Amino acid sequence: MIGRSGNDYPFSKLLSYGMTHFGFLWRIVNGIPPLARWVNRRLINRAVERSASRPNPYSTLADYTSWESLTDKTWFGRHLQQPPAPARPLPAVADVVALFDQRLRKPGHSVESEKSTLLFPSFAQWFTDGFLLTDSANRLKTHTNHEIDFSALYGLKKEESECLRLKSERIGERGRLKSRMIGNEEYAPAYFTDDGLTVRPEFKALRSPLHLPPDWPPEKRRTLFAFGGERANATPQTAMLSTLFLREHNRLAGLLETQHPGWDDERVFQTARNTTTVLLIKVVIEEYINHISPYHFHFLADPWSAWSAKWNRPNWCAVEFNLLYRWHSMVPSQIEWTGATVPLHEWVFDNDPLTESGLAGAFVATSRQKANRLGLHNTPDYLLHRTEAPSIQQGRDAQLGSYNEYRVAVGFPRAETFADISSDPKICSELRKLYTEPDNVEFYVGLFAEDPRPNAAIMGLIGRFVALDAFSQALTNPLLSEHVFNEKTFGPEGMKFIECTHTLEDVLRRNIPDAVDVPVGSVTMTQTR
Amino acid sequence: MIGRSGNDYPFSKLLSYGMTHFGFLWRIVNGIPPLARWVNRRLINRAVERSASRPNPYSTLADYTSWESLTDKTWFGRHLQQPPAPARPLPAVADVVALFDQRLRKPGHSVESEKSTLLFPSFAQWFTDGFLLTDSANRLKTHTNHEIDFSALYGLKKEESECLRLKSERIGERGRLKSRMIGNEEYAPAYFTDDGLTVRPEFKALRSPLHLPPDWPPEKRRTLFAFGGERANATPQTAMLSTLFLREHNRLAGLLETQHPGWDDERVFQTARNTTTVLLIKVVIEEYINHISPYHFHFLADPWSAWSAKWNRPNWCAVEFNLLYRWHSMVPSQIEWTGATVPLHEWVFDNDPLTESGLAGAFVATSRQKANRLGLHNTPDYLLHRTEAPSIQQGRDAQLGSYNEYRVAVGFPRAETFADISSDPKICSELRKLYTEPDNVEFYVGLFAEDPRPNAAIMGLIGRFVALDAFSQALTNPLLSEHVFNEKTFGPEGMKFIECTHTLEDVLRRNIPDAVDVPVGSVTMTQTR
Repeated sequence: MIGRSGNDYPFSKLLSYGMTHFGFLWRIVNGIPPLARWVNRRLINRAVERSASRPNPYSTLADYTSWESLTDKTWFGRHLQQPPAPARPLPAVADVVALFDQRLRKPGHSVESEKSTLLFPSFAQWFTDGFLLTDSANRLKTHTNHEIDFSALYGLKKEESECLRLKSERIGERGRLKSRMIGNEEYAPAYFTDDGLTVRPEFKALRSPLHLPPDWPPEKRRTLFAFGGERANATPQTAMLSTLFLREHNRLAGLLETQHPGWDDERVFQTARNTTTVLLIKVVIEEYINHISPYHFHFLADPWSAWSAKWNRPNWCAVEFNLLYRWHSMVPSQIEWTGATVPLHEWVFDNDPLTESGLAGAFVATSRQKANRLGLHNTPDYLLHRTEAPSIQQGRDAQLGSYNEYRVAVGFPRAETFADISSDPKICSELRKLYTEPDNVEFYVGLFAEDPRPNAAIMGLIGRFVALDAFSQALTNPLLSEHVFNEKTFGPEGMKFIECTHTLEDVLRRNIPDAVDVPVGSVTMTQTR
Repeated sequence: MIGRSGNDYPFSKLLSYGMTHFGFLWRIVNGIPPLARWVNRRLINRAVERSASRPNPYSTLADYTSWESLTDKTWFGRHLQQPPAPARPLPAVADVVALFDQRLRKPGHSVESEKSTLLFPSFAQWFTDGFLLTDSANRLKTHTNHEIDFSALYGLKKEESECLRLKSERIGERGRLKSRMIGNEEYAPAYFTDDGLTVRPEFKALRSPLHLPPDWPPEKRRTLFAFGGERANATPQTAMLSTLFLREHNRLAGLLETQHPGWDDERVFQTARNTTTVLLIKVVIEEYINHISPYHFHFLADPWSAWSAKWNRPNWCAVEFNLLYRWHSMVPSQIEWTGATVPLHEWVFDNDPLTESGLAGAFVATSRQKANRLGLHNTPDYLLHRTEAPSIQQGRDAQLGSYNEYRVAVGFPRAETFADISSDPKICSELRKLYTEPDNVEFYVGLFAEDPRPNAAIMGLIGRFVALDAFSQALTNPLLSEHVFNEKTFGPEGMKFIECTHTLEDVLRRNIPDAVDVPVGSVTMTQTR
């Protein structure tokens, strides 16, 4: 679907110039709440209206519209209908994968991001793993709920939530998620038995950790947590993020239980969940999206922006959104962690580094290391064939339109030459060799071939899609809707914390032992200069 | 949830006066398409904005908001939160049922509608049976899809559609629903084997006919059709309506197959289904809602009315909507049918009268008999305990607010005296005896205790809810959405028939043998004077 016409490109450039300059002015705007809310709403509307509002007529089911394509959400949505088969055959997947290979970059092996710490891609991975869920049996299908429902913490289905809950009516236990103390810190329970060999019977309803190798050593298996998300144990960082919100959930449950002695376990749990889910959305927009944005204006998670928006329509994750979030090139091949340097392949499916450093230590360590820069020739060897090859193939399975078709669809001018895509002669020459013409470049490749933008964490086309999909998925959450977003839904306690939370650091400070010190600004997605 | 403030009641009365007078003026408005579309949109918006837009914070799950209450659609939505328990106990259900009993009316046994033919309640029953589906095991739950998805024809689930489809790639058979000829007319296949004893194996996936008595005679069982809707065999009229659209589906499939020789069975089926579903919505608004409405202005099924509406939010059937559609008092206790008069209890689960009269004959017979008037003391004996008692109980199970609370919520003034509810002294005295105060009157009872309005098929509070729920459910159908409602979705053939269809008679004329004559206006929900 083509959104608003693309011929406002000159205005768009001008707006972008204005938004990325005059920092003092934007600080004033942000300092006047009614003005900031108005600007926020206008900018968000502009971002989302780049694409036609849902429902999309097409899904990955078929290239025509049917009741099933409009209602069966086990297929991915799609922004653009699949085009007629391309005129010339696409290059071999292996040759395209080579475009992403870090080892083929000269000189050196990787390029660091100038803006982002490792916390940024860690959060992106963990957050999007909650709803961008490709079925392994058929990459055109998905088992997502299509909502920011915090499945990383609560699971996708009720039976998963149920097994993660303490379910006790005793004071001090109402509404809680199961947890345990390791040292003086709270963590999720172990998923495997102590010998690391079998799943604990109480957690049989959970989806098993995705891509966990069958021969994974028992001593690492036994460090994995019982989490709702099938990827929440992937690295100590994903586990760290789920742990943070597990503690926040239980902390809120404690507050609610005290303030509302008449509430049973169920009501305390549900109200704490309502609040924790909105806290996640606040962090997504106010920390994560603002980190991505090159603008001086600071976006607000203001539900009002969406209440009368024409794009306030039911969520449906698009296959393009799923693909453009494959930011494996941002992951360093060595992780620096409280003194040690660990190669990536030893870093996965092992939560010992998290429990050893403690939650605050883990956040600080993740905020201290620079991320790699998003782009071609920057994906580490360990991830290259695991992730880039299936991503390229998924784009082909879904018969996506070309990179240029997507540029035009969201208001960018068509790339006439390879130099319109990248200023790097090596990239241009490689693209020419594989695709001959700019019009032949695949969506997935074009996304990452672009030049980085000044002060932006990601590139132009990715940025435009992330903005439109993120705002239109986050702000349409039912918890933010006009007649739901109020104290009745969160309790006055929950509402108070929703109002005062803007960053992960805000949440972290409430959930670490008193003795632990977290210097201001030490938990950050943005490199401090 | 309280919608727009109720203090515009004087303006509302004035508007209503204007809309129910000056017929010549409204005919002029309807004759100028751009003006008619604009007025249509304004009136529909006004009707729907009587209530707060979805999502409703509450469902029948619990009296507080949770992720489950916002997402688990196996519970009914609700317009108003359940109030604290009423101050005084409610009267016994049996005493309340007596309020509906036709036999307790003096003099005579029933009152006829001054406006509606039997086609009106027949259509209402058949149409709402497609989505107002109460679970028999728990009346707070539902198995509806919450959409006008034409489940009466296609079933609620894919496996049901599949077993109803011919699924053949042969020309002349692509995209068709299974059917057979009886005489020279097309009907659905038989659901039971010829002996009437067992369900045909090919139809095992269908829901069995709801409330079919286990001891029902085999000679009547064998007349029942294999339909998607669990109530579509309830009477010859419900079967007649499903038969009409089965023929229309197959007729459209034939057209599409001819015009698009490259389309396979699947695409022809899906495209015919898209069109048939929208034809249903056209009839719902342009014939059925216009019959209900006392206005001179003729409502249009114009998708544009909803595209930027703030109330364009996902459908979720409300328990109040479910209850206020119990129009059993409109059903005559004797059915007049092509010469014969049949008592109601012999009229159910028997499609012989339909196949004997033929489809056109059935429509004409149903249009010739007057419906009864909606209201108290008009429900026939046969339906009284089968339907009114469970309805009253369902309202209590859901702990609905009082009749007066609902009046206020949608902008009517609170009834201060019983005379504000009904002008009939007998009804007032009965209500006083049961409820003492107007504030104690139950929602379900108050709905039907009201006076009929001039030239309206239904009463005031029911009418207001029907309008707001019907428009907000019908016009938000994904097939009518901005980027879907076009020739690509229906084919040019489908679009043509969508444009030229306004009534059941329009659809009928395309689907009867050439030799059968249907005089203009002989198929009608409105009595001809």
